Amino acid sequence: MIEAAGPACVAVKPQLACFERLGWPGWKALEEVCAAAREAGLLVVADGKRGDVPVSAKAYGQAMVGETDSPFGPVPGLGADAFTANPMLGADALEPLVAAAETAGAGVFALVRTSNPGAADVQDLSTPDGPVHEHLAGLVDRFSGRLAGRDTELSGMGAVVGATAPEHIARLRELMPRAMFLIPGVGAQGGRPEDLGPAFTPGRAAALIAASRSIAGADDPGSAAEELRRSVWEISG
Amino acid sequence: MIEAAGPACVAVKPQLACFERLGWPGWKALEEVCAAAREAGLLVVADGKRGDVPVSAKAYGQAMVGETDSPFGPVPGLGADAFTANPMLGADALEPLVAAAETAGAGVFALVRTSNPGAADVQDLSTPDGPVHEHLAGLVDRFSGRLAGRDTELSGMGAVVGATAPEHIARLRELMPRAMFLIPGVGAQGGRPEDLGPAFTPGRAAALIAASRSIAGADDPGSAAEELRRSVWEISG
Repeated sequence: MIEAAGPACVAVKPQLACFERLGWPGWKALEEVCAAAREAGLLVVADGKRGDVPVSAKAYGQAMVGETDSPFGPVPGLGADAFTANPMLGADALEPLVAAAETAGAGVFALVRTSNPGAADVQDLSTPDGPVHEHLAGLVDRFSGRLAGRDTELSGMGAVVGATAPEHIARLRELMPRAMFLIPGVGAQGGRPEDLGPAFTPGRAAALIAASRSIAGADDPGSAAEELRRSVWEISG
Repeated sequence: MIEAAGPACVAVKPQLACFERLGWPGWKALEEVCAAAREAGLLVVADGKRGDVPVSAKAYGQAMVGETDSPFGPVPGLGADAFTANPMLGADALEPLVAAAETAGAGVFALVRTSNPGAADVQDLSTPDGPVHEHLAGLVDRFSGRLAGRDTELSGMGAVVGATAPEHIARLRELMPRAMFLIPGVGAQGGRPEDLGPAFTPGRAAALIAASRSIAGADDPGSAAEELRRSVWEISG
């Protein structure tokens, strides 16, 4: 898949669940996939949506991006360039994940508004200061200085914002002006690239469009990826 | 640790992050720990706080409890008796996890009110119908019939409720009368067994008290576990 679709992509987003269900040989395969992606010049976004209390979040940070100075000696981890995180446990639980990314020069994509229909059950609950997902956006923005880019206004403290509810994207871009957006839900889940323009307000590098199943499940993954690349290029300009 | 503390415990709760950071050999060790716990007659609660969109949640269910009829042939998974889950993605994302548990005769503990200070940032946000954690409790209760016990009023659809905010426990017990409570935060994090009485309203089997670090970090883990067992026995009666 990396060989076929890689040339049209900037990153590979392995879904950790698909490897974990195969036990330790699956985790070994995951490490091999990450290495092959790096070899092909692609970024790796480890999609595990991890989140836990601070002491455990620190261990998840090590698992995702590694740590050279750990008390156990160097921990390689997956060596991911970025990883997804679940922010439901709040700022103190995000902190060790951001710290791990900071040390490794990596990025974090925290869930803000996911692409599944059930997202509404919790993320859209209304509070006196706007829906829950706007509070999650506030959490992301709070950490943006920590993972700030050197030659860009953008930050590696990013947000997962589903393509299936494009009505939120402009507002979330306002609340997170510097965040990279990771946008799943295009293709198989029904999201359309032409609705995603506002995500790219700060420029072409401001969002990653993930279309894993529409590419991996296509008869010709290379063409599917190339077609998607073109449609994203058009709307991101 | 299983040998030393096991006799005073009913379950082992491996924290998946601690194994994952060691890569595939860590995941192999995790499988060995789960097998050793079963061998010692202990239940296994796989603590990974997984949560994802439905198609990925299905794979996490396979990873936690296995699946005999998967399209890949039998998937053993960790063979856990229960596992923790993050409900931020809503009911449709919990559904495949509950379905996996249902088939395997296992339980699910969804995060409702965690034990870390940052829990307040999202889980305590107020909505017109009570704080977010009460909505999460409603989600848990909605699934309780699916994992109902055969000879008990209790359900294997459980909730993680931290010992560090005992003021919520009585109210959450009202909202989830059948849920097993998994209660972390005793000991190292400051929670006290004597504040947890209301969790046991439906009886002694209604709550599991987790005190991983206070046991694993003690000079004599066996005595630490036995002491905790006694104090829980007193307040649960």
